[in-house]
Amino acid sequence: MIGKQSVKFDKGIYIEATATVVSEKEKEGPLGKLFDVVVEDPMAGQENWEKAESKLQEIAVDKLFMKSSYKKEDVRYIFAGDLLGQLIATSFGLKRYEIPIFGLYGACSTFAEGLSLAAITISSGAADNVIALASSHFASAEKQFRFPLEYGNQRPESSTWTVTGCGAAMVTKNETPVRIAGITTGKIVDYGVKDSMNMGACMAPAAADLIETNLKDFGVDASYYDRIITGDLGTVGRTILIDLLAEKGIRIQDNFMDCGIEIYDSESQDTKAGGSGCGCSAVTFGAYIMNHLTTGKWNRILFIPTGALLSTVSYNEGESVPGVAHGVVIERS
Amino acid sequence: MIGKQSVKFDKGIYIEATATVVSEKEKEGPLGKLFDVVVEDPMAGQENWEKAESKLQEIAVDKLFMKSSYKKEDVRYIFAGDLLGQLIATSFGLKRYEIPIFGLYGACSTFAEGLSLAAITISSGAADNVIALASSHFASAEKQFRFPLEYGNQRPESSTWTVTGCGAAMVTKNETPVRIAGITTGKIVDYGVKDSMNMGACMAPAAADLIETNLKDFGVDASYYDRIITGDLGTVGRTILIDLLAEKGIRIQDNFMDCGIEIYDSESQDTKAGGSGCGCSAVTFGAYIMNHLTTGKWNRILFIPTGALLSTVSYNEGESVPGVAHGVVIERS
Repeated sequence: MIGKQSVKFDKGIYIEATATVVSEKEKEGPLGKLFDVVVEDPMAGQENWEKAESKLQEIAVDKLFMKSSYKKEDVRYIFAGDLLGQLIATSFGLKRYEIPIFGLYGACSTFAEGLSLAAITISSGAADNVIALASSHFASAEKQFRFPLEYGNQRPESSTWTVTGCGAAMVTKNETPVRIAGITTGKIVDYGVKDSMNMGACMAPAAADLIETNLKDFGVDASYYDRIITGDLGTVGRTILIDLLAEKGIRIQDNFMDCGIEIYDSESQDTKAGGSGCGCSAVTFGAYIMNHLTTGKWNRILFIPTGALLSTVSYNEGESVPGVAHGVVIERS
Repeated sequence: MIGKQSVKFDKGIYIEATATVVSEKEKEGPLGKLFDVVVEDPMAGQENWEKAESKLQEIAVDKLFMKSSYKKEDVRYIFAGDLLGQLIATSFGLKRYEIPIFGLYGACSTFAEGLSLAAITISSGAADNVIALASSHFASAEKQFRFPLEYGNQRPESSTWTVTGCGAAMVTKNETPVRIAGITTGKIVDYGVKDSMNMGACMAPAAADLIETNLKDFGVDASYYDRIITGDLGTVGRTILIDLLAEKGIRIQDNFMDCGIEIYDSESQDTKAGGSGCGCSAVTFGAYIMNHLTTGKWNRILFIPTGALLSTVSYNEGESVPGVAHGVVIERS
């Protein structure tokens, strides 16, 4: 425990392997060549979007077992979630592994929630190896939160494109080149934004709060990290985040990155403000960020998947969209 | 770590206080006098069912702070969830506390998921005091999963009545008379049951699997516990559970109890097979079970909130309803 909301892990907690699966759209983006598996059929051979997302989870876990030195029997828990009501992508995607499961919901911050609880669990001695996983699917998310694809609605410039993908990580107590050094767990932050087509604005205040808290708790400044990496703020959210932190005298733009901005080329791919969804930070982490850490391009990052706590029920009842963000400090060991 | 899916806690992890809030319906049931707060207005003074459920969470947490010796500032995390899509009861109910939050979804097993992660977290040293909480509301659940109340649908005998209530527990490292001695975390178990009006049948296989695993992992038989207590199997689920375990040579009926069966008088209250929902096990635990432990009527229980991983999306797509159950071993310290 350090500061108000953070934990520093003395015992080593490591990420041994990651696995990522995406669709054609992400393959065509700037990070396209880094993903492990590309599913050409957006239905992934299934009969509906939800089953397709479950299939992405299966593919990611199967790939993770191929890349990891641990087998199914070595994994004590899965910490997993998705964006759908009652986590159906996860329930149906992971049941065949018969691994004890903790179902998580943190909107698009879920991958960090999973990594955080994985780290806590290993540090407690309750597990040696666990999997953290999160997924999203453009079509299942649009159906759930906005309009059916067949409706062909227009998309405002502030909107983001839900990533079709799943990222999974094997977290373990045995030493590897990349370790989880600490976590900062976010609280719910609500600035009263009510625009479901502007998730970046809903989440930026939570990200700002998290970054400020993390720097205070760890007693460092922003330059302590080679990169401060948010999940899916997009271009609109990035501007708000930088402004909010500037008011607090914190400057992050020199080493800031957002997974949502990196994953697509918004000009050529018409993704507006960027990518979003649980899968966005999970696959960008597994493919791009892990690569930069293992090869030594970066030594230490603050990874902050951001979540917009949006539901059509609360939204249609006129409620705002509160944000949440969870931070994970990851470094070369 | 013991056995395949369990953890035994050597360091003491204690439950210091619980708080429960219910509606008139639960007050009229057999446990009515034990609840801390009864909200007479099912809307809890709010303008819709979802806000009412959020209000129940607020009332429960406020009451918990009154009953506990710990203040808001002493609480490191909240582990919380509800049944609604994207956990909106939780997002809106808990945001004003500004406590770092881990959002959980385990259907009606959520309270045990929260207690389990609370125990792991305290045992890791990442927190001294945390809150575990779960809520449900009859009207928000019916609207979400089945029919609008105005439709006035008939209810089959196997159906259960979602408890309107919220239960919260203060879990701490400092010694109190009741301790969490261990956990057994469940995997997703799917017997292919497709009846959304028969949740007991969907969950009983998961409960059976959990009990069998717990007894094996701890190396004990069913009589080791004064009570084995499931969350909301109801009368239909109980019969299936007893039969399934009998096939494995395990007899639990001598010391078995189900929160869903205890909370209502099904004859006079027309609740069919019993109570259900995240709130069912949470309020029965906080009011009735804790009372039996603190007064020494019971010395050791296995508490198993059970969850049916039902969503209208997957259900309407013809999918089965998988079950999940998480076990918590609680004893007098």
